[in-house]
Amino acid sequence: MSSSTSFVDLLIVGAGPAGLTAACWAAQYQMSTRIIDQKGSRTETGHADGIQSRTLEILESFGIVDPILNQGIHDVDMAHWATEPGTGNIERHKRYEADSGQSSRFGQIMLNQGAVEQVLVDYLRNKNVYVERHKEAKTLHLLPVDGEDKEEFPVIVRARSVEKCGVEDTIHARYLIACDGAHSWVRNQLDVQTDEISEASTWGVLDIVPITDFPDIRQACSIHSHLHGSIMTVPRENRLVRFYIHLRDECKEEALKHYNPSPRDMVEKADRIMKPYTLTYNHCDWWSIYPIGRRLVRHYRPHDRVFLAGDAAHTHSPKGGQGMNVSIQDAYNLIWKLGAVITNGAQPTILETYETERRPVAKQLMTLDSRLVRAYEDEENDNSSGIYEVREQYAGFMAGIDITYPHSTLVTQGEEDGATNFAKNLRLGMRLPSFLVVYQCDGVPIHLAKRLVSDGPWRLLVFSGDLRQPERMNALAHFAETFSRCSHLMNLQGIQVPKGRCPILELLLIQSSPRSAVNLLDLPELFHPFDHLTGWDYWKAFADDRDQAYKGYGIDKNGPGCLVLCRPDQHVAWIGSMENTSELDSYFSSIFGRSS
Amino acid sequence: MSSSTSFVDLLIVGAGPAGLTAACWAAQYQMSTRIIDQKGSRTETGHADGIQSRTLEILESFGIVDPILNQGIHDVDMAHWATEPGTGNIERHKRYEADSGQSSRFGQIMLNQGAVEQVLVDYLRNKNVYVERHKEAKTLHLLPVDGEDKEEFPVIVRARSVEKCGVEDTIHARYLIACDGAHSWVRNQLDVQTDEISEASTWGVLDIVPITDFPDIRQACSIHSHLHGSIMTVPRENRLVRFYIHLRDECKEEALKHYNPSPRDMVEKADRIMKPYTLTYNHCDWWSIYPIGRRLVRHYRPHDRVFLAGDAAHTHSPKGGQGMNVSIQDAYNLIWKLGAVITNGAQPTILETYETERRPVAKQLMTLDSRLVRAYEDEENDNSSGIYEVREQYAGFMAGIDITYPHSTLVTQGEEDGATNFAKNLRLGMRLPSFLVVYQCDGVPIHLAKRLVSDGPWRLLVFSGDLRQPERMNALAHFAETFSRCSHLMNLQGIQVPKGRCPILELLLIQSSPRSAVNLLDLPELFHPFDHLTGWDYWKAFADDRDQAYKGYGIDKNGPGCLVLCRPDQHVAWIGSMENTSELDSYFSSIFGRSS
Ligand SMILES: Cc1cc2nc3c(=O)[nH]c(=O)nc-3n(C[C@H](O)[C@H](O)[C@H](O)COP(=O)(O)OP(=O)(O)OC[C@H]3O[C@@H](n4cnc5c(N)ncnc54)[C@H](O)[C@@H]3O)c2cc1C
Ligand SMILES: Cc1cc2nc3c(=O)[nH]c(=O)nc-3n(C[C@H](O)[C@H](O)[C@H](O)COP(=O)(O)OP(=O)(O)OC[C@H]3O[C@@H](n4cnc5c(N)ncnc54)[C@H](O)[C@@H]3O)c2cc1C
Repeated sequence: MSSSTSFVDLLIVGAGPAGLTAACWAAQYQMSTRIIDQKGSRTETGHADGIQSRTLEILESFGIVDPILNQGIHDVDMAHWATEPGTGNIERHKRYEADSGQSSRFGQIMLNQGAVEQVLVDYLRNKNVYVERHKEAKTLHLLPVDGEDKEEFPVIVRARSVEKCGVEDTIHARYLIACDGAHSWVRNQLDVQTDEISEASTWGVLDIVPITDFPDIRQACSIHSHLHGSIMTVPRENRLVRFYIHLRDECKEEALKHYNPSPRDMVEKADRIMKPYTLTYNHCDWWSIYPIGRRLVRHYRPHDRVFLAGDAAHTHSPKGGQGMNVSIQDAYNLIWKLGAVITNGAQPTILETYETERRPVAKQLMTLDSRLVRAYEDEENDNSSGIYEVREQYAGFMAGIDITYPHSTLVTQGEEDGATNFAKNLRLGMRLPSFLVVYQCDGVPIHLAKRLVSDGPWRLLVFSGDLRQPERMNALAHFAETFSRCSHLMNLQGIQVPKGRCPILELLLIQSSPRSAVNLLDLPELFHPFDHLTGWDYWKAFADDRDQAYKGYGIDKNGPGCLVLCRPDQHVAWIGSMENTSELDSYFSSIFGRSS
Repeated sequence: MSSSTSFVDLLIVGAGPAGLTAACWAAQYQMSTRIIDQKGSRTETGHADGIQSRTLEILESFGIVDPILNQGIHDVDMAHWATEPGTGNIERHKRYEADSGQSSRFGQIMLNQGAVEQVLVDYLRNKNVYVERHKEAKTLHLLPVDGEDKEEFPVIVRARSVEKCGVEDTIHARYLIACDGAHSWVRNQLDVQTDEISEASTWGVLDIVPITDFPDIRQACSIHSHLHGSIMTVPRENRLVRFYIHLRDECKEEALKHYNPSPRDMVEKADRIMKPYTLTYNHCDWWSIYPIGRRLVRHYRPHDRVFLAGDAAHTHSPKGGQGMNVSIQDAYNLIWKLGAVITNGAQPTILETYETERRPVAKQLMTLDSRLVRAYEDEENDNSSGIYEVREQYAGFMAGIDITYPHSTLVTQGEEDGATNFAKNLRLGMRLPSFLVVYQCDGVPIHLAKRLVSDGPWRLLVFSGDLRQPERMNALAHFAETFSRCSHLMNLQGIQVPKGRCPILELLLIQSSPRSAVNLLDLPELFHPFDHLTGWDYWKAFADDRDQAYKGYGIDKNGPGCLVLCRPDQHVAWIGSMENTSELDSYFSSIFGRSS
C-alpha cells in the first residue's frame, strides 16, 4: 500500500459548484490549496439548471460568464395553464413576460449544472489547479488549535484513491472546507446538528427532449390539471426541457420505497395532465425522484478550522432554482476571508462573519422554499396567482442581488438598517449594483462591476462630485493628502506582493463633471499612480458621462461626494464622507491590526 | 531523406489571418484540407491591430467573437492635435466621439493580430484541424484540368519541413489557396501580374508602453507638429500604444537603406513632435519601418485551381487599418463557394465570382488608401479636417459593412443598382444587416445574425407579414405548398448529410403579428419540421415583436411580405415575392443544376 503525506493551507472536500468556486477564489491568493472529489468526473447531466443574476455576476467577476451566457437559455416567457372545468382540457390562463434582470445586468439563465462546473474547471486549469478525482476523504482528525499543543496544520484528512485501491494520501491542512454535498461526510464526522423539516410530498424530475404539440413547451410553464395533478416545465439548452412532476397521488413519503415510477411512467402522467395535448419522448437525459425536505445545519463552522458550504450546510426543494446558486455564493463569501487571514495576516475573527452572513440567507431560503411549496399546493386548489406572488415578493432574493449582510467587523453600521445619507440608494452590506461610466483616460464606456473583479482587493470608490468646482477639487486633493499621510492605509494600498498579486486596497475615482472637463494627470497621483517601468496607471479614474452612477447610487452630482468601500466580494463595507479617512483607517485596523 | 505523398481537396499555403479563416470555413464542409506555414508559430506581436465591424460579425458567425471583444479596446474617443504657431507647442484642436458601429452591432476593436490568429487556431483545434508549422512550400506543379489528361488533383506542391531538414511532403490538391502574404511565393511561382504604385514616404511603426504626460495618450490621436512632423497614436490592450511616425524628413524612399532609425530614435522624434509633453518608454513590444506602397494583382485566380487571397493579392499602407480585415474577408468569400463545388456538386463557374466580388473591393481600398495618405500629407499642410472627411466618407466601407457584391450567378439583378421594391432598405449583394427579433416559441430575443451562422446553408428568410390577416396566412400556406411541390428546392432544403452537416438551404420565418397571436404549430410544417427522434424544430420562426426587422429592412408590416435569400456568407442573393418560388428555383438550378 503506497501512501503520501502533504501539508496545505486549504483542503476542499468536494468538487461540486461550491468546491469548484472555492478553488477558483483560492487561486487568487498565495496559498496552497487542494481539492478532492470521490467522483471520477464533473456532473454530466441533470441536477441544477437555474443560474441566477448574482451567480452570473460572480462568474463575470472571474471573467468566465460568456460561455454560460452563450450556451444557456435566457429570458423565456412564462405561462400558467390549468384545466377548464367544462372540457377537462388545459387552457392558458396567464402569460408573463420575462423581466430581464431588474437591478442586475443579468437575468436568469437555464443551463445544466455540468456546464457551470466545466467553466470553473477550465478556469482552474488555466491557473494550474486540478481537481483530484476518484479521491475519497476517509478519516478526519482535528488537533488542538490553541494552548501549548497548538498545531499549525490541525486538520488531518486521510483520503483514498477510489480506483487505484491502495494509494493513501494524508493531508495536513490549516483549514478545511466541506463542500461535500447533501450527504456531507464531513458534517457526519463532526456530528453537526441540523434542523430538518420534510413535507409529505414527492416530485419526479426529468430532462427530456419532448415531442409534443403543447404550444408553450419552450416557455417556463406551470400546468395544473384537476384530475391528474401538476407539472412545471423549464426549457433548456439542446432541445431539452426539464419537467417537475408532482407524484403526490401515486406515492406519499412512506410509500416511496415501494413506488418506483420510471421516466416513462412520469411522462405518461404528464401526458394526462397536459390533455388535450400529447407528450412523448425518445431521449431522456437524466431523471430523479425526490421527497421534498429541508435541512439546515445549526453551525456553519463546527470547528475553528472547518467550514461547511453549499448543500453540506443546507438543502431544500429545487422549486426556487436556488441550490447551486446559494452554494456558489457560500464559497464566494468565505474564501476571500480565508485568503486575507492566511496570506495577508488578517485577524481570524473575521471568519466568524461567514456564519453570520450566510446562515441567515439559508434560513430565508427555507422560508421561501416552504412558501413556494405551499403555493404550488394551493395552486392545486386553484389559486393560480400564489406562485407568482411568492416569486414576485422574493424576486430580488432569488436573483441573489437583494442579499444584504448584517453589521460585523466587515460591514460597518449605518444610521438605521444599513442606510446612509451619503448615497441614498445604497445600504451597508448590500452588493454594489453596477452602472455604466466612462474611463477618464479614453472615454470608453465600462460597467463599474468590470473593475470590481475577483482578484483580491477591497475597493474604495471615491465619488468626488463635480471637479470643475474648485472646492470639489480641493476636497479631493485634501482627501488624497490625508490618505497618503495615513501610512497604514498607504501600506494596504501600496503592498506590492510578488508574482503580480494585487494590493489589499485599491482606489477608484468616479467624478461627476463631464470627462472632457478634466485632465487625468491633473488629479492627485493616487488616482494615476506612476510606475517607472510602465508609466502612469490610466485605469483608476472614471467620469459619470452616461449619467447613471451618481443617480443610481443616490449621490448628488453637485454635492460633496462620498467614499464607498467595497469588500473583495463587492459588498458595501463602509460609506463615509471624503473627510472621513480616519474611520476608514479604523475599519482596516480592526481587520489587519496596525502592523500589516 | 524521408518523404510522404498525400491527396487533399484543399491546400492552404500560409496561416496568417487569411489562411486561418480559410481553414475555419473549410472545416464546415466534408472536404479534406491541409494548411501549412513556414513559420514556427502564429504572429506574436505587432502587425495589424484594427478589427473592423464586418470582421467581428464574421468571427461571431463562427462563435468566436467574445474573446476578441473581451481582450480588445473599444470605442475610444479620438482627438486631433496640432502646433500652435505662437508657442510651437501642440494643442488639442478637435475631439471626436467614437461612433459605435453604425449599422453593425459591433464597432471597431483595437487588438493585436496575434490574438485574432489565436482564436482562429483555437477554433481549428476544436475541429481537430492543426496548422502544419515549419513547413515551407518549395515547388509548385500544375497539371491539366481539362481535355484527355485531366487530373483530379492537378495541383502538386512539394513542401519541406524547415526544422527537421530532410522531411519532404508531396501534396496533391484539387485546389490551392495562396494565403502566403505580401511576398507571396505562389504569386511569384505563377508570375502573376501586379499593378504597383509607391509613394515617396516612409513611416515607422511601434508598439510601446508609453511613459508620457500627454493627456490623450489613451485615445486615438493624430498629432501634427509644424517643425517635427506627424504621428498617429492608437491605444491598445495591455497598456500598449501603437505609434505611426512619419519619417519623411529623415529618409526619402531611396535613402531608406542607409537610414535605420532605432525605436529609440523614433520615440525621440515623437517626443519632439509632442512638445510640451514628453514621451519615453521602457518596453517596446514590436516595431517596423515601411515605405508606403500599393500593389494589386491583376488576377485573383491565376489558374483554374489556384486562388490568391489576402496580402498575396493586395497590399497598401496600414493607415486605414484594413489589411487583416480585407484578408479575412477574402477567405470568407471564397471558401463556401469551394465547399459548394467540392462537396455539394455546385457548378465550378461560381468560383469566378471570387475575383469579380473581391477584386473591386481591393481596388476601392487602393483609392481609399491613396486618399488617406494624401489627407495625412495635406494635414501637414494644415488641413486638419481632411483625414476625418475621408474617414467619414469611407466609414461604411472601412467597417466592411457597405461592401455590396455585383450581379453574378450568385447575386441576382435588381431593378437598378441592386435595389428592390419588396424590401426598400435592402440591396442585392449587400450583407444582410441584423435586427433583434424574438423566437416564436419562447419570446426569447435574438439577433437575426445569430441564426445566420457560418455552417454552410443559404438561408431563405420568409417575411410573411401579419399572420392575423387570413389572406397573409393563406399566402404563407400557399408559399409552403408551392415550395414543397418543387422537389428540387425540397431536396436542397432536406438534404440530411451525415455527421450532422447542414442542408444547403434553410428556411426561416419572420412574421409581423405579435408573437402571442400566433401558435407555432399552426404554421406550415416547413417552419417547424418534425423529426421522429427529437420532435419539432422550434427555432425556425420569429416574431418582429421588437419592431425592428420589418422597419429595418424596409418591409411593410401590413403588406404582402417577401422572400429574402441570403448566401452562406450572409450577402443578399435574391429578393422576391412570396409567390415567386420559381425564380428561387432557377437561382439554385443555375448553381446546382437539376440533378442535385
Ligand atoms: C433534481 C435537482 C434539481 C435541482 N435544481 C436546482 C436548480 O434549478 N437551481 C439550483 O441552484 N440548484 C438546484 N439543485 C441543487 C444543486 O444541484 C445543488 O444545490 C448543488 O449541486 C450543490 O452544490 P455543492 O457543491 O454544495 O454539492 P454537490 O454538487 O453535491 O457536490 C458535492 C461533491 O462532494 C463529493 N463528495 C462527497 N463526499 C465526499 C468525500 N467523502 N470525499 C470526496 N468527495 C466527496 C461528491 O462526489 C460531490 O461531487 C437541484 C438539485 C437536484 C437534485
Ligand atoms: C505595421 C503593420 C501594421 C498593420 N496594421 C494593420 C491594421 O491596423 N489593420 C489591418 O487590418 N491590417 C494591418 N496590417 C496588415 C496585416 O498585417 C496583413 O494585411 C495581414 O497579416 C495579411 O494577412 P494574410 O493572411 O494575407 O498574410 P500574412 O499574415 O502575411 O500571412 C502569410 C503567411 O504565409 C506564410 N508563408 C509565406 N510563404 C510561404 C511558403 N512558401 N510556405 C509556407 N508558408 C508561407 C508566412 O509565414 C505567413 O505566416 C498591418 C501590417 C503591418 C506590417
